[in-house]
Amino acid sequence: MPDSKEKILKTINRAEGGDLLSRRFDQFIMGLILLNVAAVIIETVEPIYEKYHPFFDAFEIISVIIFSIEYVIRVWACTAIEKYKHPVWGRLRYMVSLGAIIDLLAILPFYLPLVLASTDGRILRILRLFRLFRIFKLGRYSLAFNLIAVVLKKRRAELTVSLTLLLMLLIFASTIMFYVESEANPDSFKSIPQTMWWGVATLTTVGYGDVYPITPLGKFLAGIIAILGVGLFALPAGIIASGFESELSNQKKDKEEAKEEE
Amino acid sequence: MPDSKEKILKTINRAEGGDLLSRRFDQFIMGLILLNVAAVIIETVEPIYEKYHPFFDAFEIISVIIFSIEYVIRVWACTAIEKYKHPVWGRLRYMVSLGAIIDLLAILPFYLPLVLASTDGRILRILRLFRLFRIFKLGRYSLAFNLIAVVLKKRRAELTVSLTLLLMLLIFASTIMFYVESEANPDSFKSIPQTMWWGVATLTTVGYGDVYPITPLGKFLAGIIAILGVGLFALPAGIIASGFESELSNQKKDKEEAKEEE
Amino acid sequence: MPDSKEKILKTINRAEGGDLLSRRFDQFIMGLILLNVAAVIIETVEPIYEKYHPFFDAFEIISVIIFSIEYVIRVWACTAIEKYKHPVWGRLRYMVSLGAIIDLLAILPFYLPLVLASTDGRILRILRLFRLFRIFKLGRYSLAFNLIAVVLKKRRAELTVSLTLLLMLLIFASTIMFYVESEANPDSFKSIPQTMWWGVATLTTVGYGDVYPITPLGKFLAGIIAILGVGLFALPAGIIASGFESELSNQKKDKEEAKEEE
Amino acid sequence: MPDSKEKILKTINRAEGGDLLSRRFDQFIMGLILLNVAAVIIETVEPIYEKYHPFFDAFEIISVIIFSIEYVIRVWACTAIEKYKHPVWGRLRYMVSLGAIIDLLAILPFYLPLVLASTDGRILRILRLFRLFRIFKLGRYSLAFNLIAVVLKKRRAELTVSLTLLLMLLIFASTIMFYVESEANPDSFKSIPQTMWWGVATLTTVGYGDVYPITPLGKFLAGIIAILGVGLFALPAGIIASGFESELSNQKKDKEEAKEEE
Repeated sequence: MPDSKEKILKTINRAEGGDLLSRRFDQFIMGLILLNVAAVIIETVEPIYEKYHPFFDAFEIISVIIFSIEYVIRVWACTAIEKYKHPVWGRLRYMVSLGAIIDLLAILPFYLPLVLASTDGRILRILRLFRLFRIFKLGRYSLAFNLIAVVLKKRRAELTVSLTLLLMLLIFASTIMFYVESEANPDSFKSIPQTMWWGVATLTTVGYGDVYPITPLGKFLAGIIAILGVGLFALPAGIIASGFESELSNQKKDKEEAKEEE
Repeated sequence: MPDSKEKILKTINRAEGGDLLSRRFDQFIMGLILLNVAAVIIETVEPIYEKYHPFFDAFEIISVIIFSIEYVIRVWACTAIEKYKHPVWGRLRYMVSLGAIIDLLAILPFYLPLVLASTDGRILRILRLFRLFRIFKLGRYSLAFNLIAVVLKKRRAELTVSLTLLLMLLIFASTIMFYVESEANPDSFKSIPQTMWWGVATLTTVGYGDVYPITPLGKFLAGIIAILGVGLFALPAGIIASGFESELSNQKKDKEEAKEEE
Repeated sequence: MPDSKEKILKTINRAEGGDLLSRRFDQFIMGLILLNVAAVIIETVEPIYEKYHPFFDAFEIISVIIFSIEYVIRVWACTAIEKYKHPVWGRLRYMVSLGAIIDLLAILPFYLPLVLASTDGRILRILRLFRLFRIFKLGRYSLAFNLIAVVLKKRRAELTVSLTLLLMLLIFASTIMFYVESEANPDSFKSIPQTMWWGVATLTTVGYGDVYPITPLGKFLAGIIAILGVGLFALPAGIIASGFESELSNQKKDKEEAKEEE
Repeated sequence: MPDSKEKILKTINRAEGGDLLSRRFDQFIMGLILLNVAAVIIETVEPIYEKYHPFFDAFEIISVIIFSIEYVIRVWACTAIEKYKHPVWGRLRYMVSLGAIIDLLAILPFYLPLVLASTDGRILRILRLFRLFRIFKLGRYSLAFNLIAVVLKKRRAELTVSLTLLLMLLIFASTIMFYVESEANPDSFKSIPQTMWWGVATLTTVGYGDVYPITPLGKFLAGIIAILGVGLFALPAGIIASGFESELSNQKKDKEEAKEEE
């Protein structure tokens, strides 16, 4: 039995060797996930949903059935892994692992309303939101997720420092602007938290234009803040970018070395 | 005959040596292409077109005649190249090469309406758009195109990964913002696809200001998304920029080495 | 006595070794500072302040008492440091050091109105602003501040040059745009200082959209200024970012070397 | 005589050694130039100019007298330089050198109206604009100008290529958007040149918000253009920044080597 379990696990996990069935299964699940994401997005366009909602509903049911079977198989077969060997405790331990929780969150929004028999619109709305968690199921098959996770981990120290500086600057800039502008411009700079909305829009250079200073002193200070602050706000971007590139070139080197050793 | 064909081909292709005639021809065609692009752009300014449209029409006819002659000569002379040696199959194979297709698309918008005898405004409009394909004829003479093509090819892996992450972030941010804002702000955040317009404007930091969150929670989440997301959206820019620079410095080195070897 | 002073100083300063009491004290003061910053920010939201102002006022008094005691202890104990050994002149010299001034500015806004018996709204408002100086008290405990100070110092030359260029460009662009736009668009481009507000918003790419050129010539020039200028305005950001990264990697190396020597 | 000329030239040129008089003269002229720039800027604020215009006029006259004397001395003394030795041709050659033309343009706007006896408002306005050329007189004293000139020259090839690509992208994006949007949104996307205003605002990420697509297809294409284009538009910025930094580190090395050799 454990042998067949192992085989099944290998098939439904990311294909590493040349097993054709495993690769086909990967492609099928990835396609299904992407179609689910597309469905969640397109469903919100009301004229389309109204016209085609039987299709959307049917697709949802089929998807949930497939994802549920996948979940049950995974829980059943996990005992083939040394870590989760015990038939009860091992399975429970597997069920609280990150991958299993994501798998559960991907199907739970469908079952919960049936169980709760709730018709509260708010809760149903939030549960629909959880359907987007299906996108994280891709994490098992896509290397991009692993990459960004590695970069964030390796550059944690730099990112913490720069995000701290950035938050300080945001607080400081917003406090000054609040004291300077709030009298002349009470709608936009009503309180410091509200002024921070201006601060984020300015320092990230998004600049929607819904909030901007109108007094000469406010404009002068906003100009100085923008010039000085834009540099600091570009820091995390630069850190992530350089971490990303060095990580990718490391992986390339590793692959080349692995090839040479063969 | 093949000898004269070869000579003609060399003349109309990008001059590599010091052949004066070939260089003059290059400059003439490049100038004509640039004038065509300028004409396409300026024609759309109605007061100018109304006043000078005989000139624009005459220029269009002359350009098409020259480009047509160029196309015919290229198809006729291509048999001088080893690859397209066969008088029929070789020529057909040449006609489906990228360069030949671009050359054809550059003149087709002029001939098609005559053939189709169509007076449908929509089709004529779209055909006029195709005239801009003439700009790609520059690709044969300009190195900038080759450079960007090389960079995109060499950094394909990095760009794919970063564009995937970016798309994930865009979908995720837009879904959250849709659920948070759509009730209070139904015009701007009507559906997830519409919210993605906000997402692109925010994460690229363009920030037109036609769409922005108005609820406190929406502003708070938008602020966090902007701060975190701007870093990821700067990734492709950084990857292209560094690829571009390393490619240019490689070319410099190659040239210097070529010189030293002489 | 000096021995106990030294011990007290070590306790209230940033913990370097494994002294548990000192580390607990650090965490307590840092938490108190962060709560104070949060209080300053949240207080400005009127509905919240109206409802909970007794809590805010009580928290302010408690904070000032703690910070005052800390200040008095620091001044009293500073004579344990060689530099400030003299009981009178040493203490005075300590009181004009940067750290001591920040500590004083953090509590002064509370005492001054009592001493001045002023009820002038403006002065009280400005004094409240000074409460934000408490954030700089974090400087003693947080390494992020030291880091940015080091980077700014090491890259001073580069930053001066690039800020000079940037200011020149801003002046030049604003002067040209003022002469081009002021007639057609007198509200937005009323004077050169006002046009500089447009210049900052454009060259930092914030682009609120409250000011933009409307004449064709103005738009043409603004486009060229934006394309050329954005590069220069990204300079200080790039300089700070690269300085920041090289500083952090230096610190890493230092730590590793220190470990190897052990 | 040539000896005294040489001495005078050394005094009014940028001080290189420790000559105190020369350094004081540099500081005086730099201060005067900066005050002139400030005057040009502040003069345009009407309430200030109306109140203080006698001061502004007097300052203008004094400045022009000093700059005129400086110009006359430079032309007179230039024969001390080997290149401009000839009393007539040498001086004429000097007068068409870049520095001398800038010096002349700095004073000409004052004399021309007297000579032309023109009272045409337009011409007078444009002449006032020329007063800003005084800022370029700083070039003789400031190293920032030399630096940027060197960087632009060394990275000419890279900048040309990236600006070409950028222009192509701008033309292409604007043409497509014009064909897609002009029917639904004729005010903002009236012609391709006008659509290029949208293109510049989007691709530089300024995003004023005066022009943006409103059709779903237009928004979809604008989103793709923004994501892809932002990377290309960051190229010139990156090239200038990296050229700038490598130039500054070169200069540092040169200085250090010069010191070591001493």
